[in-house]
Amino acid sequence: MTISTDQLLDALRWRYATKKFDPARKIPAATWEALEESLVLTPSSFGLQPWKFIVVQNPGLRANLASESWGQPQVTEASHYLVITARTDLTTTDIDSWIARMAAVQDASPESLAMLKGMIEGFAQAMSHEGRHAWNIRQTYIVLGQLMASAALLGIDACPMEGISPAGYDQLLGLEGSGYATAVACALGYRAADDKYAQIPKARFDRAHVISHV
Amino acid sequence: MTISTDQLLDALRWRYATKKFDPARKIPAATWEALEESLVLTPSSFGLQPWKFIVVQNPGLRANLASESWGQPQVTEASHYLVITARTDLTTTDIDSWIARMAAVQDASPESLAMLKGMIEGFAQAMSHEGRHAWNIRQTYIVLGQLMASAALLGIDACPMEGISPAGYDQLLGLEGSGYATAVACALGYRAADDKYAQIPKARFDRAHVISHV
Repeated sequence: MTISTDQLLDALRWRYATKKFDPARKIPAATWEALEESLVLTPSSFGLQPWKFIVVQNPGLRANLASESWGQPQVTEASHYLVITARTDLTTTDIDSWIARMAAVQDASPESLAMLKGMIEGFAQAMSHEGRHAWNIRQTYIVLGQLMASAALLGIDACPMEGISPAGYDQLLGLEGSGYATAVACALGYRAADDKYAQIPKARFDRAHVISHV
Repeated sequence: MTISTDQLLDALRWRYATKKFDPARKIPAATWEALEESLVLTPSSFGLQPWKFIVVQNPGLRANLASESWGQPQVTEASHYLVITARTDLTTTDIDSWIARMAAVQDASPESLAMLKGMIEGFAQAMSHEGRHAWNIRQTYIVLGQLMASAALLGIDACPMEGISPAGYDQLLGLEGSGYATAVACALGYRAADDKYAQIPKARFDRAHVISHV
């Protein structure tokens, strides 16, 4: 049961980086549940899912996170606030954990899993520690892309939050030493009726500026 | 006109990294047009869109790209093959170009645009050249996330391609010295009826493993 191209494009045009949320409107539980499931389903390279997601609903904690986000009101006013963290490394333990999960879910042969494991290990070892962390952070931006599109299609407003202090977030969320570090965040909820940014025409480069055909 | 949570999750569960495409099935022009428009509409930090997209349909070029992709058959067999490139830097010229575009599309005041421009310049200058390139590459993964979700909702199969040689792609596509470099690619089309990967259960970590609530 696919959707029409108009449904897709209407949603992508409707969305914008919501600056002012209506603090009184909350995302219904079933809708939020679907958004969490979309997070779980996000594709990642080798399927590794080098991330964890923290849904921050505690008002005091959100106020503290706002202080680490240039005071942006989306952090406290949106219905839901999601912090996306990336694994700081990609170790044999991480790879083993993923291989074990695949073995449990899929009826894969030990040989095919051993080959995949060797391939991922070779890939990971070719990068520095910093390179592995950076690569994991990239993967979290797939999450961000799928999440913003999914939310728009469900009629949920979102604001991706890059203007944050990852180190400040890590401290507030107790992530130091956990092997995960804040990559990016996303506020989700409903635009306020008077968010002036909702009225500004969407600006993008012309298609011919960004797409070529060879 | 939003879609239901079931429509969203059905599409996200239906999709998988398609390894074997049906080379005889082509994405209809109107559907491809919508996918290109979804690329144009992809959100990016500050709206900078630090990317260009190359749709590669030339069979000889695709065969050469396959050689720079571990010979993976998706490169030549998928209906469409998209190379996503990232800007290798973030210069004053890039920022000016974006500010000029905003001024042309939106009725923004020179003052507000000057403030935004100063903010982006400060942000860019705080990073090294390599840091700016890496940051632009991250942004292209938002593209990948939105593209894979969009394609799935339209019933189009996709395979994100990270196992490629960006340097080899750059040479084949004439990108050297262009200020853009290959970040990642994506094959799009229709799964072959006998792609065994379509039958394997989707493996993800449990929701409780990746999502916490505080």
